[in-house]
Amino acid sequence: MTSVGVLGATGAVGQRFIQLLDGHPEFELSVLTASPESAGKRYREAAKWRLDTPIPEDVAEVEVRDTDPDEIPDDTDLLFSALPSSVGERVEPALCEAGFVVSSNSSNDRAADDVPLVIPEVNADHLDLIDVQRDERGWDGALVKNPNCSTITMVPTLAALRQFGLERVHVSTLQAVSGAGYSGVTSMEIIDNAVPHIGGEEAKMETESRKLLGEFADSEVSWHDASVSASCNRIPTLDGHLENVFVETREEPTPEEVAEAFEDAPTLDLPSAPNQLVHVFEEPDRPQPRLDRMLGGGMAVAAGGIQETDTGIQYNCLAHNTIRGAAGASLLNGELLASEGWV
Amino acid sequence: MTSVGVLGATGAVGQRFIQLLDGHPEFELSVLTASPESAGKRYREAAKWRLDTPIPEDVAEVEVRDTDPDEIPDDTDLLFSALPSSVGERVEPALCEAGFVVSSNSSNDRAADDVPLVIPEVNADHLDLIDVQRDERGWDGALVKNPNCSTITMVPTLAALRQFGLERVHVSTLQAVSGAGYSGVTSMEIIDNAVPHIGGEEAKMETESRKLLGEFADSEVSWHDASVSASCNRIPTLDGHLENVFVETREEPTPEEVAEAFEDAPTLDLPSAPNQLVHVFEEPDRPQPRLDRMLGGGMAVAAGGIQETDTGIQYNCLAHNTIRGAAGASLLNGELLASEGWV
Amino acid sequence: MTSVGVLGATGAVGQRFIQLLDGHPEFELSVLTASPESAGKRYREAAKWRLDTPIPEDVAEVEVRDTDPDEIPDDTDLLFSALPSSVGERVEPALCEAGFVVSSNSSNDRAADDVPLVIPEVNADHLDLIDVQRDERGWDGALVKNPNCSTITMVPTLAALRQFGLERVHVSTLQAVSGAGYSGVTSMEIIDNAVPHIGGEEAKMETESRKLLGEFADSEVSWHDASVSASCNRIPTLDGHLENVFVETREEPTPEEVAEAFEDAPTLDLPSAPNQLVHVFEEPDRPQPRLDRMLGGGMAVAAGGIQETDTGIQYNCLAHNTIRGAAGASLLNGELLASEGWV
Amino acid sequence: MTSVGVLGATGAVGQRFIQLLDGHPEFELSVLTASPESAGKRYREAAKWRLDTPIPEDVAEVEVRDTDPDEIPDDTDLLFSALPSSVGERVEPALCEAGFVVSSNSSNDRAADDVPLVIPEVNADHLDLIDVQRDERGWDGALVKNPNCSTITMVPTLAALRQFGLERVHVSTLQAVSGAGYSGVTSMEIIDNAVPHIGGEEAKMETESRKLLGEFADSEVSWHDASVSASCNRIPTLDGHLENVFVETREEPTPEEVAEAFEDAPTLDLPSAPNQLVHVFEEPDRPQPRLDRMLGGGMAVAAGGIQETDTGIQYNCLAHNTIRGAAGASLLNGELLASEGWV
Repeated sequence: MTSVGVLGATGAVGQRFIQLLDGHPEFELSVLTASPESAGKRYREAAKWRLDTPIPEDVAEVEVRDTDPDEIPDDTDLLFSALPSSVGERVEPALCEAGFVVSSNSSNDRAADDVPLVIPEVNADHLDLIDVQRDERGWDGALVKNPNCSTITMVPTLAALRQFGLERVHVSTLQAVSGAGYSGVTSMEIIDNAVPHIGGEEAKMETESRKLLGEFADSEVSWHDASVSASCNRIPTLDGHLENVFVETREEPTPEEVAEAFEDAPTLDLPSAPNQLVHVFEEPDRPQPRLDRMLGGGMAVAAGGIQETDTGIQYNCLAHNTIRGAAGASLLNGELLASEGWV
Repeated sequence: MTSVGVLGATGAVGQRFIQLLDGHPEFELSVLTASPESAGKRYREAAKWRLDTPIPEDVAEVEVRDTDPDEIPDDTDLLFSALPSSVGERVEPALCEAGFVVSSNSSNDRAADDVPLVIPEVNADHLDLIDVQRDERGWDGALVKNPNCSTITMVPTLAALRQFGLERVHVSTLQAVSGAGYSGVTSMEIIDNAVPHIGGEEAKMETESRKLLGEFADSEVSWHDASVSASCNRIPTLDGHLENVFVETREEPTPEEVAEAFEDAPTLDLPSAPNQLVHVFEEPDRPQPRLDRMLGGGMAVAAGGIQETDTGIQYNCLAHNTIRGAAGASLLNGELLASEGWV
Repeated sequence: MTSVGVLGATGAVGQRFIQLLDGHPEFELSVLTASPESAGKRYREAAKWRLDTPIPEDVAEVEVRDTDPDEIPDDTDLLFSALPSSVGERVEPALCEAGFVVSSNSSNDRAADDVPLVIPEVNADHLDLIDVQRDERGWDGALVKNPNCSTITMVPTLAALRQFGLERVHVSTLQAVSGAGYSGVTSMEIIDNAVPHIGGEEAKMETESRKLLGEFADSEVSWHDASVSASCNRIPTLDGHLENVFVETREEPTPEEVAEAFEDAPTLDLPSAPNQLVHVFEEPDRPQPRLDRMLGGGMAVAAGGIQETDTGIQYNCLAHNTIRGAAGASLLNGELLASEGWV
Repeated sequence: MTSVGVLGATGAVGQRFIQLLDGHPEFELSVLTASPESAGKRYREAAKWRLDTPIPEDVAEVEVRDTDPDEIPDDTDLLFSALPSSVGERVEPALCEAGFVVSSNSSNDRAADDVPLVIPEVNADHLDLIDVQRDERGWDGALVKNPNCSTITMVPTLAALRQFGLERVHVSTLQAVSGAGYSGVTSMEIIDNAVPHIGGEEAKMETESRKLLGEFADSEVSWHDASVSASCNRIPTLDGHLENVFVETREEPTPEEVAEAFEDAPTLDLPSAPNQLVHVFEEPDRPQPRLDRMLGGGMAVAAGGIQETDTGIQYNCLAHNTIRGAAGASLLNGELLASEGWV
């Protein structure tokens, strides 16, 4: 078994890590960190557990450590990071310098030239950027990132459309409140309402998508030159981001060809990877967040409503934002790191 | 005072008509119709009143009539129609033939060549199509339509952008449940959920927008040649449609020029017309349905989040779907008909 | 394996039956019935499947039959009924007469003297009323009922308190929308709202509770003489009924004794019975519908907030209304019928 | 005009004060205070305005002061307090000592023997406790409190039932999220959920009700000896607390007599007092929060569902928790203070 730790284990994404690691066939959770106020407490007391499955019994009694490189035992093979980005940008490099491999969901450093931003089924080869990273930074460890939850929902479908010559993407998102963390959206803000703004989210979708879809060669990732414009909205939904995508491509695929491209999206043989990456619904009113977010254990992407427009194709896609879009994304990156020998 | 009636007075839009006509300075409500089961009852009993202001006392005791041309007194000057389209397409022409002027919110006949589809501040001149209509159909009355609620939310902003050479529009909607009528969306469908499909809505937005923005000359409306692609979603909001719009124009206006164009949108001197047609918010997280749907008594359009994209402009807009988007739209058309002497 | 059928298989409760029977260790689903419009269709087409697990593959292709005694194969051992009560009161007696054993969730006949109303962990002995029923009605089959969802949430806790001399119960319910069926509550009714009335529900809680808590002797059930007053409310929650209970007892148990009585509630060795019937939370803000409705696979009751009042005890309880409160309740009754040799 | 100030003007209740004071016939708002971070800013910048009517233009430009007695101009006649109780218990006595009359919504000191806790239509005579207060504390000013929002919803109905000999009250509340302030309840907590616990709320209902219903004589209030047991719940509703009340009385009034008692509840001739204190609905499914919270401009109480139980009467009541239950309550107390010559 690979010995793993979770940094920032008490928050919403941290709890998902705990839940997803419970019973994992390859990873054994041994280290939990949180902010100084939680350090020294049992996890049961430190975390206000809010998932609808119980805290795994063995984890409940683990003593939470301070999120400090000195607190992580040397024999921890892999660290998952659910740190706030302000903490991540300070602590993650220190951990990598100390020799740890970190699979991080935090938003810091995602755009850095030598930091692999990875969705395993889409651009596993970007992982080799770790060599560049180690060269440049003199690290023994490594830092690998997964993209933002709204980006991760759309990119597997865009990757499948690259074969048609992706040129222009307009996307509108209907994002769940859990994406802002447990206390990120107040009920007064969102009941009987929608908010057409999520700070920084549109820029993340526009840049991260192009990096993910880019080509890795000669020690660098050339970002894809498609243009991406995003409009991000928060709606009164708990989990699952739904996105309306309009795509213009050089070729003119039919909706059937698009559906086929989605269904043929490659999958990987990793414990948390879904059997089918993109599920295509024929019913025009699917996917829907509550009904479809748990497809593939929350790790699949659902698509539907594929139609021609005057200048391209439109469709809807959906993924579980705290599983495929956050903790599950880092976990899958960790599994990829392990299977490719980086851990 | 102009004597008016409401067809289909017991439903959700019908109730809004009653509410908006209460205390109207020019119109006096004298006739209410509904389906045969309601005919003969007092309005108080026939309607399951669901608005948060009380039923106007005088209306409550009016006897509801069957929706039948023979039941409408000859001296009724103007009829507002909130009929289901299947009833509207049968009854409305019969009423026009019998000499009545009908301002209708029903979706039937909106695309017909000789039926004016009107937003008074946008294309009041299309009303002259009534002459063509009377010629062709031999009617003494007239049939005038307002567009669909999702169309009406966006078109005032597009009209303001015509000066920059409107070429391509992508729009995603976040629509309130009241748009489907009182029983249109069940709670099991929509709580903690969103539905990326509203039957026929996308086509309505695409065609109605182009007719509204078209030019009326030589007895016909030439539809605007901009291309419009819409993706329509239902979300758990009671009232107020929010829309994300991406626009490509021949010229390249700055966000400031777009804001100015919105603020300069013309207004009319009609009782229900708002003082300012389009309100522009500088706060990036506005407009929001619950906070902004009642601007201008529910008759204004709110816009915000204006930004440049790689190829154009994006922004958000919002209007109250059962006021500006339905009953208020027909009412304003009625006021225009009266002020221009058609009634 | 026992061969079972589901009557009314396409509705919300019917779908739960299908879901719960999938992979059942003792029951094999072979017959599905629905209204005449669905008869002859594959289940996949007849049911608008709305649960968040997929339709079981083998069930999806089963042909739905008309809900007619002549359509049920003779070798069907046990029928579960999710019929509307108006259909149930007609069809269920006919089926029993034809020799079928029916475990029914429909509300008809629950108060009848010779119809066992059963929660297996509470009053399994009432099942012997079947002998009386057969005597009186001349049936070969049998009709067994489970109580209403709001009753079933509270009665396991009241049963545990009988030892202290139950005298007076006041209960207020906060009930989920699924209790009214898929289309029972519109979104316009319930978003940002609550409805302090559910037709007939209060009377059901008051009478069914007393029958369930009653004693079976000499061929009849003497209803418990506690007085029960209920106030029932619908709130914007999808699943899970939460109830505030105030109890007056002859003895004066401490909150600790009440908690102990709840935790000691008996359980049964049946496939769908939870290991622990009543879970007691110490956290004062639990149980909560979304977090706790799936305890024991949706078959447990959760309790919390136990406190002394001036004249007794107050506490909160919660159960999943379409599992423990409906389909799961009938299923458990079916398992009891099988284990006691009635099937 | 009476010159008034609002302490804690930027929060949710503070904003309601601003809204309700706009256009007030007797009070002129001249002073706004908030926490030190807001001091010195224009109100428009200091408050994140969240009501659905715009900030009154004249108030928007007022400079916010620190909540410090030295900052309040001497000629301010009356202060309304929306302070957090931890601030209120420090600042309010200092202000009263400095000679100001304070009408406070904060929960501190509500139970104090010499502090009048007042609902004007219920116990206006308790205001004379100010004489006792001044004697004991040596104040020139005065401190008057209104009760908690959940208490205020129920007490006008209980007051009307005193004539029948009030003995025992059980009440369950379904409370809106605004009662916890703008950020008090997160969306993750409450969407598709309910929380059966609001810290301290049950005790407030039990004690405040008895003080309000008590008799003032010989310089002290003798609390009413009815026993009150409350169970408080938070539900996904924005505004309006709905309550299920079970009452036992010495006499046995019929539901009709109860309805009559409610409708005969006295009203006062004060600017913010509703014409009818308690509205009685005959429809069994009313009152409902969204439909009925704005009755009497948000200052009325709605009641319905009046029925007999085995031992008494049950009914439902509802009031707007941030108007009648908070800012409007203090405002009405201020109007009473002014009309009785205390200001």
